[in-house]
Amino acid sequence: MSKVFVSMDMSLDGCIEGPNATLQNMGGDGWGDLHAWVFSQRVFRERLKIGEGGDTGPDNRFLEAIFDRTGVSIMGKRMFDLGEASWPEEAPFHTPVFVVTHEVRAPWVRPGGTTFYFVNEGIEHALHRAREVCGDKDIRISGGANLVAQYLNAGVVDELLLSVAPTLLGGKRLFDGVDARVVGLELTETLASRNVTHLRYAVKKKR
Amino acid sequence: MSKVFVSMDMSLDGCIEGPNATLQNMGGDGWGDLHAWVFSQRVFRERLKIGEGGDTGPDNRFLEAIFDRTGVSIMGKRMFDLGEASWPEEAPFHTPVFVVTHEVRAPWVRPGGTTFYFVNEGIEHALHRAREVCGDKDIRISGGANLVAQYLNAGVVDELLLSVAPTLLGGKRLFDGVDARVVGLELTETLASRNVTHLRYAVKKKR
Repeated sequence: MSKVFVSMDMSLDGCIEGPNATLQNMGGDGWGDLHAWVFSQRVFRERLKIGEGGDTGPDNRFLEAIFDRTGVSIMGKRMFDLGEASWPEEAPFHTPVFVVTHEVRAPWVRPGGTTFYFVNEGIEHALHRAREVCGDKDIRISGGANLVAQYLNAGVVDELLLSVAPTLLGGKRLFDGVDARVVGLELTETLASRNVTHLRYAVKKKR
Repeated sequence: MSKVFVSMDMSLDGCIEGPNATLQNMGGDGWGDLHAWVFSQRVFRERLKIGEGGDTGPDNRFLEAIFDRTGVSIMGKRMFDLGEASWPEEAPFHTPVFVVTHEVRAPWVRPGGTTFYFVNEGIEHALHRAREVCGDKDIRISGGANLVAQYLNAGVVDELLLSVAPTLLGGKRLFDGVDARVVGLELTETLASRNVTHLRYAVKKKR
């Protein structure tokens, strides 16, 4: 059965965005340090059409495995808005993407296989629709923090992948909306790298 | 020259203490999950006089290296108060310990080589006094979060060691008082273990 997973870059102080984030200062102050590892990975450069070459080591394989397993993504409206302003015309998902939003909007079809569907009936319904189209692949909760917290609190996330960057941001924290009394974690993998630490957790109800 | 280092257990959401911490609920709710890995280590059990036996693997060697390198510790008054209520009579430091506090108090000598000195002239003075007595060993900033933040912001910490536990606490965060604009980190070691991830960072001014 398809798994529901989250994969995010996080600073050591638990942030997924720096302070002072706007459309002009995307990701906030220090955003570059948070994602530094990813920009040099070959599979990321290909997907985002940044340029030729790139690393092909363990970080790249880690990232490639995430892309490969993802049959569908779910994201919040704020993340979509930021992406709409920055993705290349061929958006980097190549799958259906469900955007949880109050906005009513017709599906937005992009070249390369990405179609954004705008879901107005809440997170459970978005997950239901994602399950209908993901086939034997997995469902990625892409972000932002608010949507991830809602899915974690609802007890429907199977796996949490965090790439912990060696930086402090003092910005928007991933876990602020998460109910620590109910969301339990079991460490299942640590992938050490030179500039980032990839941590994999199985998510389960706290006993 | 002696290094100044911090070594703390931290939850994945960046906390060093759970919510609702009191003298009766030491460490707050979920405290046991945060420190679970440490209680089974042989060197910790010996030091705290908890009991015989214990693990002798990589976690134990990691912890033993911290004990061995520490020539002196510096802690805040709140941490001291918690410890005073819980350490065995033979306090587990076996070195001088400087307590940064407004309270005027004569040195408190414990059996086994631990003496607590109460320093009223601030963090720089405490560090100065620590340097005078540490010999060729290192100086540990033991906590709590407030004192660690002050030393990090002052730019005098060389190394940060975090043992990241697979739990969310929603409590007191280690980095809340740290100025993310000035404190830079370089990842120097990742030690993967079954129930905890030990991360080592060199601390330097952000460029």
